[in-house]
Parts: sequence; structure tokens; C-alpha cells
Amino acid sequence: MTARPRVGAIEAGGTKMVCGVGRTLEELLDPSSQAVVPTGPDPRATWAEVRDFFVGAGPVDALGVASFGPLDLDAGTIVSTPKAGWDGFSWRERARELTGGPLVLDSDVDAAALAEWHHGAARGAAVAVYVTVGTGIGGGCVLDGRVLRGRRHPEMGHLRLRRRPGDEAASTCPYHDDCWEGLASGEAMRRRHGSRAEELPADHPGWAVEADYLGLGVADLLVTLAPDRLVLGGGVLAHPGLLEDVRRHAGAHLNGYAGLGRTGEGGTGPLDDLVVAPGLGSRAGLVGAFELAVRGLDGSPPTG
Amino acid sequence: MTARPRVGAIEAGGTKMVCGVGRTLEELLDPSSQAVVPTGPDPRATWAEVRDFFVGAGPVDALGVASFGPLDLDAGTIVSTPKAGWDGFSWRERARELTGGPLVLDSDVDAAALAEWHHGAARGAAVAVYVTVGTGIGGGCVLDGRVLRGRRHPEMGHLRLRRRPGDEAASTCPYHDDCWEGLASGEAMRRRHGSRAEELPADHPGWAVEADYLGLGVADLLVTLAPDRLVLGGGVLAHPGLLEDVRRHAGAHLNGYAGLGRTGEGGTGPLDDLVVAPGLGSRAGLVGAFELAVRGLDGSPPTG
Repeated sequence: MTARPRVGAIEAGGTKMVCGVGRTLEELLDPSSQAVVPTGPDPRATWAEVRDFFVGAGPVDALGVASFGPLDLDAGTIVSTPKAGWDGFSWRERARELTGGPLVLDSDVDAAALAEWHHGAARGAAVAVYVTVGTGIGGGCVLDGRVLRGRRHPEMGHLRLRRRPGDEAASTCPYHDDCWEGLASGEAMRRRHGSRAEELPADHPGWAVEADYLGLGVADLLVTLAPDRLVLGGGVLAHPGLLEDVRRHAGAHLNGYAGLGRTGEGGTGPLDDLVVAPGLGSRAGLVGAFELAVRGLDGSPPTG
Repeated sequence: MTARPRVGAIEAGGTKMVCGVGRTLEELLDPSSQAVVPTGPDPRATWAEVRDFFVGAGPVDALGVASFGPLDLDAGTIVSTPKAGWDGFSWRERARELTGGPLVLDSDVDAAALAEWHHGAARGAAVAVYVTVGTGIGGGCVLDGRVLRGRRHPEMGHLRLRRRPGDEAASTCPYHDDCWEGLASGEAMRRRHGSRAEELPADHPGWAVEADYLGLGVADLLVTLAPDRLVLGGGVLAHPGLLEDVRRHAGAHLNGYAGLGRTGEGGTGPLDDLVVAPGLGSRAGLVGAFELAVRGLDGSPPTG
């Protein structure tokens, strides 16, 4: 029996890069195997710090990267990003400085979906959807362990929604006046209410608006992708009771269709096991990057 | 080398059942290998005719069925159908009268999606979506040859759409006031205009409304499922120029997002190769049933 390979993982976000190494998930999640590097405006400086960590940590057999985007997965690069300085950054070229083994790159959202499928709240799902509601809204889908990708990765945040009667708040999306992200992301909440989601009072009527829009988008995903598990995470979902309200609104929008009815008197309903909180919390991105690398060495990368 | 197996295929629609047998697709599509049986109100009488055809045609090694529904795929039955008399009809039990081999059952829409992926306009697509706009609106998705199914099959016709300003036509959906099927199916057109789609004049303004709603739903599917091919078929799409208008409206709804822009001056655009007409026309259901049976014998049924 050969030793398990040792892999490197990077969760590359817009504000920080979380780096880790390990042969197992337990090793990876040990804080002594990790480093956090701020994502600065100069990719060369940021990368120098990331590389220093990996050089110090010792050789790896493969690298998994869960990156902010947009990404050109064929080229292995970040493209057309609004993040100053990072347009054209090549993960493929940089990975060669760390390993002679494979680089497996995917979006932060797809990687988190994969992580939730392997180790989190979507374990065993034939079709797992992961949606994160933070500054923006993003979603990924994993089918029996493979990331859904056709022409490109899904852009679930750009589902068009019907606005609530009388809602004339400006959309935050530069493309769409009424897409999910434009109406219901954290940034949309901030514009709509003049306050960041985490600072909005718990009894503010904006939370009912948010639950309604999130429920409508969730209902649309349930009918198009037919998941057996939809994991709903991200900073906005930290608001106590929001997940339960989203389920209730999604059920009302589905209105009993396909057995997906309204929430019952006791607060329980058919969506309780279908629309769930993440199992991995903030670790999903790094765990997803780890799984990308491990599966890449298997010869069965879950993506591309 | 053993002989290729001989399989039976049934496309079971609400008005007729198309039956066929063959070892190859060519054999199956030969009219002398087929029979059409009206779907009557008494399943026993209808089935007796279907069985007579197969008994006359000789033994088959497997049976593929592309059936109207809703279906309980685990039980192999038609359930809760509004079609009088057919609620509870068991394909599994009936199949035992025709073959000792496997029954592979799927919905008519999923089977057509599979057929378009194997032999039609979606060949080679990593993610193929098939949408049919007839009396209702239904959609299926095939991923590298497997039918998308999580908790159940997708119900794409129940995507919620924002209504066009001033559109107060009644939805034909008993569940949703503003879902895709309720606003844009052939039945919705009939209610909206008092005339069946095929009888609506070519210059009727209703066609622009239809193209807009179909384009909006297509745009939503492009962002959620990210297909590399979306096949748009069904009786309503027989209207000349409608497919081109749907592409144009879908492009306008996407508004350039993800490179999926507006149609250019010359009428060509980025959706021309992405949103396409079916390759198999009315044969997709029977061809899909054939493929279900063939793959079932392979030990790799594409569904379930």
C-alpha cells in the first residue's frame, strides 16, 4: 500500500486566500497546516506570500484551487474580474512553481458545493445544489460527485424574478433590473435599506422581503434542477430564522406543486429536509479545494 | 460475438401510444416495425391492443417506455394523472406480460432529451436541455448521457416568470398564477387569444408575447443549468420564425451577461448554436424509449 498523496489547497477569495496542506482532511483542517494571506491589489505580492507558505510546508503532489472569478477553466486563469490587478492571473502558471502534479481549479462556489456533497449537508444527494448569499448570490450543482458544467458554470444569481408589487428598489446587477442577485444579495439589502445585512435589526421588515425573494429563487431552482438537497449558506443566512422563513416562502411559491407544499401548522414541512443549512460553514471552500486536488490525483477530477 | 438484443419501445402519450421493435434504430424506425394505438379511457382495452402488437412482433429482450405522467419511477406506475382511468396504471406489471428482461421507464420529456442527446441536435453536449412547448411546457436534462434526476425529475414548466407589464391573462396552471407553462404553453395561448396556436395568424401580436415569455424562460434555464445545447421543440415551435425570435428575446433578457448577448444586426448571435431546433422531430419519444431499453440491457440505464 502506497502512502496517501499530500496535496495543497487554496481557497482564493476577494479579500483573503486560505492555504492549507494535508494528506487527509483532518490534517488539512489543523490550523498548523494553514495560512491566511490577504488578497492585495498586487497579485505578485500576494502570490509571493502564498508561495512562501507552500515552500515552507514542503512538497505537494497536486494543487486544488477554489477561486473567485470569473474563471476561464480551460486556460486556468482569472478573467474579466472587477477586482483590480487580477484580470488574467494564471493559476496554471503559478501552480507550476509549487508542484509537478496536477492543478485542479474551480470556482469558489462549485468547490463549496463539492465539499458539502463529500463531507457536509449534501452527503449522499444524487443532485446537490449549493447557493451562497453574501455580497452577491452564486450557486453550484454537484451530480453524483461531479460538478455541473456545460457551456460554462451556472450563474444562478442571474435568475430573473418577478418583483414584489410596489418594489422599486434599484437592482445592484449591472445587467439585469430584476435578477436574484440584483434584488436579494447582501449588497442589494445594503442599498435597499441603507444598512448592511448584519446590522439590520432583527425585527426590520426588510427580512420578510429578503425571505420572499430568496424563497422565490429557491422554488425556481427546485423545479429546474430537481435537487434532493439544496444547501443555502453565505453571510446573509447567518440571520436567525431566515432559513426557516425562506423554506416557508419557497413552499408558498411552489403552492403544493409536486408535493412541495406549504409549511404546516407545527412549522414543519416538506422542505425541511430539502433546503438546509451548510454542514461545513466557512470551511467549505478550503475543503472543496482539497477534494479537487485529491480527485485530480485519482484521475477522476470532478470538473472540467 | 453475440447477436444484438431485440428491444421493444413504447412512446405513451395522452392521445396515442406509438409502439416499435428493433435491434437497431433503423429497424425501429421502419414503419413495418411500428404500430399506433389510440390511448383510450380504458387502460385495459388500450393495453390489449399494445400487447397484441408486441405478441405479433415476437419476443423482446427489454422494454423501454417513454410515458406521459406524472410517474412514480420507483414503482413503475402512472400516478395522480388527470387523464381519466389511468391513475395507478403499472408499466412494471404490464411489462412482465411482454418480456422477462428489464423495463426502463422514464417520462416522455426525459426520453426525448435522451434521444436528442444520442441521435439528434444535442449530440456531444456535456449538458443538454430539451424543452417542449405543446399543450403544456416540459423540460428534461441529460448530462453526459444520464438523465438529471434528484428528488424527482425537473418540472421546468413551473419556473415562475415576471409577467409582462399589463398582462392580466389568466394562468392555465392550477398551482401558479405566473409560471412558464401557465403563461406560455399552447393551452395558455389558446386561452389568451381564443384560438389554438396553429390557427393564430402569422402576423398576430400574440406571437411576440409568446417569443418574449419563451425567451425569458430559456434565459433562466441558461443561467441555472448552463447547458451547451438547449433544444426547443413541441407543436408551438412549428410556427415559422418563432425559434429565431425566442433566441432574440432570450439574448435581450440575458443582456450580454456571460457573453450571451443581444442578437447582432445580421440576425446572427451567440445563441444560434446554443438554442436549437430538435433533430428528431416527432420521433424523439420513440427513439428515447428505444435508448432506455438498450441502455437498460447494457446494465447502464440512463435514469433512476
